[in-house]
Amino acid sequence: MSAKTANISEATVTRLSIYLRCLQTLEKEGRQTVSSQELARQFHLNSAQIRKDLAYFGAFGTRGVGYCIANLKDQIIKLLKLNKEKAVVIVGAGHLGQALADFQGFNSGGFRVVALFDIDPAKVGKKTAKGKSILHAKRIPEIAKKHNVAIGIIAVRPQSAQAIYDTLLKAGVKGVLTFAPAQIKEKPLTKLRAVDLKINLETLSFFLRS
Amino acid sequence: MSAKTANISEATVTRLSIYLRCLQTLEKEGRQTVSSQELARQFHLNSAQIRKDLAYFGAFGTRGVGYCIANLKDQIIKLLKLNKEKAVVIVGAGHLGQALADFQGFNSGGFRVVALFDIDPAKVGKKTAKGKSILHAKRIPEIAKKHNVAIGIIAVRPQSAQAIYDTLLKAGVKGVLTFAPAQIKEKPLTKLRAVDLKINLETLSFFLRS
Repeated sequence: MSAKTANISEATVTRLSIYLRCLQTLEKEGRQTVSSQELARQFHLNSAQIRKDLAYFGAFGTRGVGYCIANLKDQIIKLLKLNKEKAVVIVGAGHLGQALADFQGFNSGGFRVVALFDIDPAKVGKKTAKGKSILHAKRIPEIAKKHNVAIGIIAVRPQSAQAIYDTLLKAGVKGVLTFAPAQIKEKPLTKLRAVDLKINLETLSFFLRS
Repeated sequence: MSAKTANISEATVTRLSIYLRCLQTLEKEGRQTVSSQELARQFHLNSAQIRKDLAYFGAFGTRGVGYCIANLKDQIIKLLKLNKEKAVVIVGAGHLGQALADFQGFNSGGFRVVALFDIDPAKVGKKTAKGKSILHAKRIPEIAKKHNVAIGIIAVRPQSAQAIYDTLLKAGVKGVLTFAPAQIKEKPLTKLRAVDLKINLETLSFFLRS
């Protein structure tokens, strides 16, 4: 796959990630090939969209056979740059920060949480249930440099989100994921992604029968 | 807006929720009308998609003026059924469960967390930082009935997810949001939505410059 990363929407990339998750599930089931139709049926996706998305990145299935699961999985992993482990830090060691630090998905398949930061003396110096160190937030620049941290996660109160974002970028972190429900002014040449957990509840609400 | 809920994809509904968030932001800024082009520009959306989505539900802007923000907001709120408060329970009072229970977005705008459940004696009988009660999981049916609980959130380990899902449905809960990275067999006439937090990291990874 060629990496035409310019002008690709977050929605398209998110779909690649969904395809990857589906392929991993099929691989665990011992499957070797899969067609776009089967992928669509089993995982409630759109088969035309799958073919279009994958073809865009240079991945084509074989007529009558479909896609080779192992190959396609590897291609998507490279495209998402998950083939080299990225160091992650989390700012805010409240319940959310600690849950994310110990979350298996954030410590596998291309990611590893190297530290959490907080300013609360009751937390600094402690460890999470799975042994991640909680350090004072003033050490963000030092740890970011030491571990070549690629991604910072903001799990602080909304009113502190912008300051933490600025601190992370100043420390050389290029990608930021924020869980704080606050508008952050995004800087160029970096990537900010906001997680809006409430959207999941609202979407669910729509589909509930009265 | 008429509620044509049949055959509407989760992706479409998620966009409605995103539009709602944008309209709420604009309303706070004191704005009264907004065009699809402005919405698209300010929030990195697709203006044609916005017009198409909203027209599908019967909401049309006025040429040269755009949409009336207050009206459109109210229409989306009704469409997402957020105009009547829904009771939510959370199963699993670990860090994630407690973070979600106290999360402001899960306790406003149509939702209220009424209880958390766990089976750990060290947690049962305690309260979260913001005062939500942690009850024994055997009380799920009683509490679900008492509060007419519409939505259950699964924040337990993957191996317990299916059993908790079954318990919630048996207790009459119609909508389930799961954070557990486990496949759950969905039952008809109910709605299950899985949150995959790792997708956010993977999407971010794609956009990072090497």
